[in-house]
Amino acid sequence: MAPIAITPSGSGASTPTAAQASTLTQAGIKHHTHDNDSLAPLDASKMTITLNPNPRDVPAMNSPEVMAQKTCTDHMVTAAWNEQTGWAAPELKPYGPFSIMPSASVLHYATECFEGLKLYRGHDDRLRLFRVNRNCERMRRSCERIALPDFDAKELEKMIIALCARDGPKWLPKERKGGFLYIRPTMISTDPALGVQRPKEALLYVIIALFPDMSKSLATPAAPPALKGDATEEVKQEKKGTSGLKLLASTEDTIRAWPGGFGYAKLGANYGPSLVAQGEARARGFDQVLWLFGQEASVTEAGASNFFVVWRNKETQKVELITAPLGERIILEGVTRASILELARTRLTEGKVQGSQLESVEVVERKFTMADVIEAYEEGRLLEAFAAGTAFFVAPVGLIHYKNKDIEVPMGAEGESGDYAKVLKGWLGGIMYGKETHEWGVVVDEVEA
Amino acid sequence: MAPIAITPSGSGASTPTAAQASTLTQAGIKHHTHDNDSLAPLDASKMTITLNPNPRDVPAMNSPEVMAQKTCTDHMVTAAWNEQTGWAAPELKPYGPFSIMPSASVLHYATECFEGLKLYRGHDDRLRLFRVNRNCERMRRSCERIALPDFDAKELEKMIIALCARDGPKWLPKERKGGFLYIRPTMISTDPALGVQRPKEALLYVIIALFPDMSKSLATPAAPPALKGDATEEVKQEKKGTSGLKLLASTEDTIRAWPGGFGYAKLGANYGPSLVAQGEARARGFDQVLWLFGQEASVTEAGASNFFVVWRNKETQKVELITAPLGERIILEGVTRASILELARTRLTEGKVQGSQLESVEVVERKFTMADVIEAYEEGRLLEAFAAGTAFFVAPVGLIHYKNKDIEVPMGAEGESGDYAKVLKGWLGGIMYGKETHEWGVVVDEVEA
Repeated sequence: MAPIAITPSGSGASTPTAAQASTLTQAGIKHHTHDNDSLAPLDASKMTITLNPNPRDVPAMNSPEVMAQKTCTDHMVTAAWNEQTGWAAPELKPYGPFSIMPSASVLHYATECFEGLKLYRGHDDRLRLFRVNRNCERMRRSCERIALPDFDAKELEKMIIALCARDGPKWLPKERKGGFLYIRPTMISTDPALGVQRPKEALLYVIIALFPDMSKSLATPAAPPALKGDATEEVKQEKKGTSGLKLLASTEDTIRAWPGGFGYAKLGANYGPSLVAQGEARARGFDQVLWLFGQEASVTEAGASNFFVVWRNKETQKVELITAPLGERIILEGVTRASILELARTRLTEGKVQGSQLESVEVVERKFTMADVIEAYEEGRLLEAFAAGTAFFVAPVGLIHYKNKDIEVPMGAEGESGDYAKVLKGWLGGIMYGKETHEWGVVVDEVEA
Repeated sequence: MAPIAITPSGSGASTPTAAQASTLTQAGIKHHTHDNDSLAPLDASKMTITLNPNPRDVPAMNSPEVMAQKTCTDHMVTAAWNEQTGWAAPELKPYGPFSIMPSASVLHYATECFEGLKLYRGHDDRLRLFRVNRNCERMRRSCERIALPDFDAKELEKMIIALCARDGPKWLPKERKGGFLYIRPTMISTDPALGVQRPKEALLYVIIALFPDMSKSLATPAAPPALKGDATEEVKQEKKGTSGLKLLASTEDTIRAWPGGFGYAKLGANYGPSLVAQGEARARGFDQVLWLFGQEASVTEAGASNFFVVWRNKETQKVELITAPLGERIILEGVTRASILELARTRLTEGKVQGSQLESVEVVERKFTMADVIEAYEEGRLLEAFAAGTAFFVAPVGLIHYKNKDIEVPMGAEGESGDYAKVLKGWLGGIMYGKETHEWGVVVDEVEA
C-alpha cells in the first residue's frame, strides 16, 4: 500500500501536533538492550560446582526409561538473570526439579526458547560436539525474538562444554563408541509478574538427556496401524516400515509458520502448536508432517527438521540438491542444514566430487512447491528426499502423502537410502565421530571422576 | 490447486501399493480423544481442601507490589492429569511454587494455555463472575489446539467458583465496592519427556492475582518519552496522555497470527512472540500495538484485546459499530467482544435504542482495513475506536500511528470517551457490579472465614 497523507480532522477532540507525533516516534528503544555496563554479563569463569551426592546408575540404552526420553544425567548448569543486576554466576549442580511460581511468565506467555545438539563418543574414544558455536549463536537470535536477555555465545559454549566434560565420561563411556547424548540448552522467563510484558527475570540452563537413536527408530512407524487382510499385505506393510520416513503433507488449515512470525527461531511457540497435526499424522501411520506454506503449497520443513530433495532439473537434466531458502524467515536455520549445504558445495559440485562415484550436483536454496515435486516424480526426475536435523540426523524419505495421493520417493538400490543422502550422512558422521579431523568437530576434554 | 493424479514411477525402489496407502490413510485417530470410560473425568466434587496455615495480609491496592502484578491470594486450585488414569481429584491448597522438571514439555514446547476473567465486588456487596461459562468453554478449545487434555467446562467453573468463594471475602472485601480481582485458569504440560510429542501429563490450575485497574492506568503511557522543548509542548504532551489509548500499527515484518495458525486460541504461543513489538511500541510512547494482517492491512486486534470502530457508513451515512470477524480464526473470540456485540444488537440497533440519546447503530462483523479507517477519518466519518477485553475492559482509543502518520480518533465532548464506548461500558459494568440484574452476572456465595 502506498503511503497515505493524513490531515487533521475537524473532530474537535484534543489532538497532538505533528511535533509531538515526531517525539513519540523518535523516542529511543535503547533501554531494552540489557547490555549496558552496570549489568553483569554471562561469565562461565564464575561457575560454581556442586557435585551430585546421589549419582544414579546409567540405564540400559534399550530400557523403557530411555525410550521414553525422560532420563537426564547427574548434573545440569543454570544461570539466573534479572533486569536489575544482569547475569548471576552460573552453577553446575545436581540435576533436579525447579521451583517456579504458578504465575511465572514462561507458563503463561511461552517466553522460552531452546537449542538441541549432541555429544558424540568417537571411534577414537574422544568426546566431541558438532559446531556448538552455531547453536549458541542461534540461541541468541531466538532469545531476541522472544524478548529474553542476550549473552555472549562463547560463555554458553563454555557452560555446555563444562557439563559435557563432567557427565560425558560416565553417561557416554568409551564402550559406547558411535553413541551420543542429547544436550538441551534452554532459556525460560521465571518472572512472576502476570502482566503481558517483557520478562524482567529469566533462567538459562543446560541439561543432557539419554535419547534412543532416532535416525534408526524413525524408519519404523511410531504407531503402526493394525493390519488386516492377508499375509502378503502384512509383509508389504513391514517392508514399507523399513523404507524411509513417511511424510503426511500439511493441509491449508494448519500451517507451522508465516512471514512476520517466528518460524526461524527455536521458540517453544513453534513446537506445541504443531503437536496436533503431528499426532494425527502418527495415528495414521506417518512419521512426520511435511509442512507446506501458502496457496502454492511451497515445501518448507519435515516435522522439526529441514527438508531436502534431489532431482534432475527439468531443463538441464543436471542433478540438483534443493532446499527451501531462509529469506522469508519461516524456516529454521538448521546447523545440519547449513553443514549439508556446505559439504555438498565443497565436495559434490562440478569439478569437486570427492570419494564417490556420484554425479556432481548443483546446490540450490530456493522456493519449491508440491507441484514441482509431483512433476519431477511423474517425469522420473525425482531421485531422493531426506529430512535433516540434529535429532533425526539425515533421514531418507520414502513416501509423501499429499491430497489423497502417494508420492513414492526412490530409496536407492538397497531400499535404505538414496546415494546422496548416504554420502552426506557418512561425511557428517565421520566428522562427528572423529573418523575425519575437521574444524566442525569440537573435542571435549573429559573430567576424570 | 486442483487434485493431481499420481502414478507410480518406474524408479525401481520398493514402493507401497495403493491398498497399503489406503490403510495408512484410513487408520483411525481415535486414541487421542482421552474421553474413554476408563479415564477419570475432571470432577470438582472430589476437591480436597487444605487451608493456608500462613495467610498473608492484603497489600494496599496502590502499593508497588500490586502495581507489579506479582501478588496472588492465599490459595490456588490444581488438578493433575495423565494419559493413563485421567484427572486426579482437584486440590484447593495454599498458593505457592510448583516443582517442575527442567525437561517439562511446557518449558520447551509451549504446551500451555490460559484464561483471564475477573471477580467483581458489586455495589450491592455481592461477589460476581461475568459469563464464566464462556471462559471455561474457550479454554477447552485452547487445550484442543495445543494438544492438552479435554474436560467438562462445568467442572472448571466449579473450581473457579470454589476458589473465589474462599479467597474473595478477604481479598476483595465489601469495602472495595467496584473493585475486582483477576482470575487466571491455566493448563500446562508437566510431562518430563523431552521428545516432541503429545503431552502425557498435564496440570490444570487456577490462581487469583491482585491487579491494578488497567482500564484507568492504560490511559497513561507506560513509559512516557522524555520531554524536551517548551512548556507548551509539555502541556500538550500531558493532555495527550489523558486522551485515550495510543496505538502503534504493526508493520508487515511482525504478524501476530495467520490463517491456519492459532490466533483464535488463548495459547502462550500467541503472547510471548508479541512482546518485542509491544516493548518497542511502549518505548516509543504508545500503549499497545494495533495488529494488522496481510497486504491490505486489515485491522485485527489491539494489544491482547479486540478492537472496535464506530463510523458513519460512506454510502448510507448510518452509524456502524464494526469489528473484525472470527471466520479466519486469527482473532480471539473475546467474551467482552461477544458481550459488546450482543448488547449493541439488543439495545442500540434501529428501534431498540434504550436509555440514551444516541443514534441507532448497525452492528457489523467484517474485515476492514487501515485504508477504510483512514478514509473515514479524512472524510470526518470516524466517530470512535476502542479496545475491548477482560484485562483492559472497554478502553477508548485516541490515536493510531500508521506509516509515519497519526490518525486522531475523536474522544467525545469531554475528551475521555466516545459516547458509544461510554454507554456500552456502562451497561457491561452495570451487569458486572450488580447495578443491573442479568444472567451474565454469576453471583458467588462467599465462604465465611
